[in-house]
Amino acid sequence: MDYVKRLEKVRNYMAENNIAGLILPPSGDLEYLSGIRRQRPNAGSTHAYGDWLTGLYVTQNEAVYVIPEMHKGYIHEQAASKPFITEVIELKEGSDLYACAKDIWTRFKMANQTVAIPKLAMSKMIINFQKFFPETKFVCSEDFIAPMRMVKDAEEVALMKKACEETDKIFQELVKTIQIGETEVEIASRLEFIMLQHGSEGPSFCSGVQLQDPSLAAVATDAINRFSQKTVQKGCSLAFDFGIILDGYCSDFGRTIYIGEPSKKQQEIHKVVMDSQAAAIKAMKAGQITAEGLDKVARDYIYNAGYVNNEFFHRLGHGIGIDVHEYPYLNYGYTEVLQENMMFTIEPSIHAPGVWTRVEDIVMVTKDGGVNLNSAPGVNDFIVIGE
Amino acid sequence: MDYVKRLEKVRNYMAENNIAGLILPPSGDLEYLSGIRRQRPNAGSTHAYGDWLTGLYVTQNEAVYVIPEMHKGYIHEQAASKPFITEVIELKEGSDLYACAKDIWTRFKMANQTVAIPKLAMSKMIINFQKFFPETKFVCSEDFIAPMRMVKDAEEVALMKKACEETDKIFQELVKTIQIGETEVEIASRLEFIMLQHGSEGPSFCSGVQLQDPSLAAVATDAINRFSQKTVQKGCSLAFDFGIILDGYCSDFGRTIYIGEPSKKQQEIHKVVMDSQAAAIKAMKAGQITAEGLDKVARDYIYNAGYVNNEFFHRLGHGIGIDVHEYPYLNYGYTEVLQENMMFTIEPSIHAPGVWTRVEDIVMVTKDGGVNLNSAPGVNDFIVIGE
Repeated sequence: MDYVKRLEKVRNYMAENNIAGLILPPSGDLEYLSGIRRQRPNAGSTHAYGDWLTGLYVTQNEAVYVIPEMHKGYIHEQAASKPFITEVIELKEGSDLYACAKDIWTRFKMANQTVAIPKLAMSKMIINFQKFFPETKFVCSEDFIAPMRMVKDAEEVALMKKACEETDKIFQELVKTIQIGETEVEIASRLEFIMLQHGSEGPSFCSGVQLQDPSLAAVATDAINRFSQKTVQKGCSLAFDFGIILDGYCSDFGRTIYIGEPSKKQQEIHKVVMDSQAAAIKAMKAGQITAEGLDKVARDYIYNAGYVNNEFFHRLGHGIGIDVHEYPYLNYGYTEVLQENMMFTIEPSIHAPGVWTRVEDIVMVTKDGGVNLNSAPGVNDFIVIGE
Repeated sequence: MDYVKRLEKVRNYMAENNIAGLILPPSGDLEYLSGIRRQRPNAGSTHAYGDWLTGLYVTQNEAVYVIPEMHKGYIHEQAASKPFITEVIELKEGSDLYACAKDIWTRFKMANQTVAIPKLAMSKMIINFQKFFPETKFVCSEDFIAPMRMVKDAEEVALMKKACEETDKIFQELVKTIQIGETEVEIASRLEFIMLQHGSEGPSFCSGVQLQDPSLAAVATDAINRFSQKTVQKGCSLAFDFGIILDGYCSDFGRTIYIGEPSKKQQEIHKVVMDSQAAAIKAMKAGQITAEGLDKVARDYIYNAGYVNNEFFHRLGHGIGIDVHEYPYLNYGYTEVLQENMMFTIEPSIHAPGVWTRVEDIVMVTKDGGVNLNSAPGVNDFIVIGE
């Protein structure tokens, strides 16, 4: 990746918009601009001495990485191959963090200026810096980095293709192992196991499977534990939604499979979902349609087939790349015109009582319409497993 | 849990300290005060319309949860059993978020006052609210909630015991399956599978295993992919460090096992680590020692045995509960006196060339010294597997 060029573009924007500094803690924006990788996040928050100071401090002439001593191995390993990082500052355990913060800000001339940070940066970074320099104005780095990230370059396209291919393989490997009588949680656990074995750096999001049993009125999956002890039985369907991170790029994938011959209603709904997706993919011509316009293509198809708003209750999809959700979103209110080499998930669904059918593929925008990066079965045909 | 009492205590603190409002997005502080559960975090960041407004807004008289429409099922399911939540506000897709933000802040009288938020709350929350009310002062909720969370009540002690017991079982189940010739990544993947099967809501942190091969000079594990393709061979050791989240409470656990009879050096180092841990546990008498004093007990033991600073390079341990890292830390600079029912990890280690031995247990402070909540083998004896 040409990080030097990306950094130059960001610095030009900063100069034109009077942004004195950009502070990037581990985040999609940091990875995009520098190649410094995020680590898998922790469910139970972890804390290190000086963690609120962590990140790459980018000004017109410098790019300095500040890191707690406890994590220094992580950055030194990566910085070695990145000559554009001008310095690494280690925060010693027990040292005066406030003095260090004040020193960096004064040296980099960020005090009481405009400073950009990612939206997910920790609030404590702002809270502590504003103690010294209350006039500092913070803005979100996504305001100018998200537009850069929307269109993927050739190297990124190759990585996205690889992540999708691996995801197709994972799904096919998993489907072979599913057995009547096993629980949703067992399938989900095995899915995570197979993902890790295929080199995933972690699930790209809280992914898994949801079992629909038409004989049960409501979806009973626990919002917290995520997976239920409901068992796979004839007549059920399994709706998959999962993704991996491979070499820093996310996949996001969906299929619905049926246990035994699907009912007439399942077949009818499946066809509407698939056809709405096909209509959307066909319409993904660069320069010809907006993000919200594309959502409308699939949405109108589903509504015209007689399904209503709360049966297809979410956006059609989202940009994807280093983050699993990237701008723009395929939803009402997003007026961006689709451009070549943008990547989107196309994921219509229908939630009808007892039947939940979903599909999701990653599709690249070209002049002639969308190109599907996934090729796992289940789009044109039903996947039916053992009766 | 007595959330009403916890909320009352926080409101008293807020009144005494002129804190007009407390905004709690999903976080350990939110769970502690309300029982509203976090979900597993995403490695590739996800974004929902209005996510920066999400959280429980606590004032003296109200506790209102604000949530993006896309996630509403999550909160309604939980709020139903929590009468102290006075209202749920859904943020409709495409609605005017700024008007909503302004409305909430005006209604709750937080504008240009002091407002507390968790240190890990997203920076965009501060950035956007300060657009309207630039005089607002933000402070960290941990300043007053962390001290409340340090001492565990009886219900919390029971949950911590359960999480530790389950972790002991997971480790013993895993050890039985390890085979000569398999890779670090295979063992780590299987570990995650077993954790999920035992009801873990996710790893409490980026946990796993590290294989030490004395014939290799350096630790070669990739900082990003975390696990290597190095294979288990005679003479190696495997250092485990992992934890689960069970009913919202974290475990954190460590053992070192040996492939074949450990070498003299491995045996010597193992004994020093275990004895330093035993000395620390014995010293954990309520009211008798500080956090930094306890660190010194184990550290002095290791240094006196001839090992140096960079061979035991990290803190002795940390508080643990809803978060895997909680205050206070067992490290230089933390002068808190240990109190009954505080919980700490006690995790000394020695990194010598080619040998890395670690142990970690969760230990509760009592009047008579520490009580170890873990009982898996490997503390008093070596765990040696097939030659």
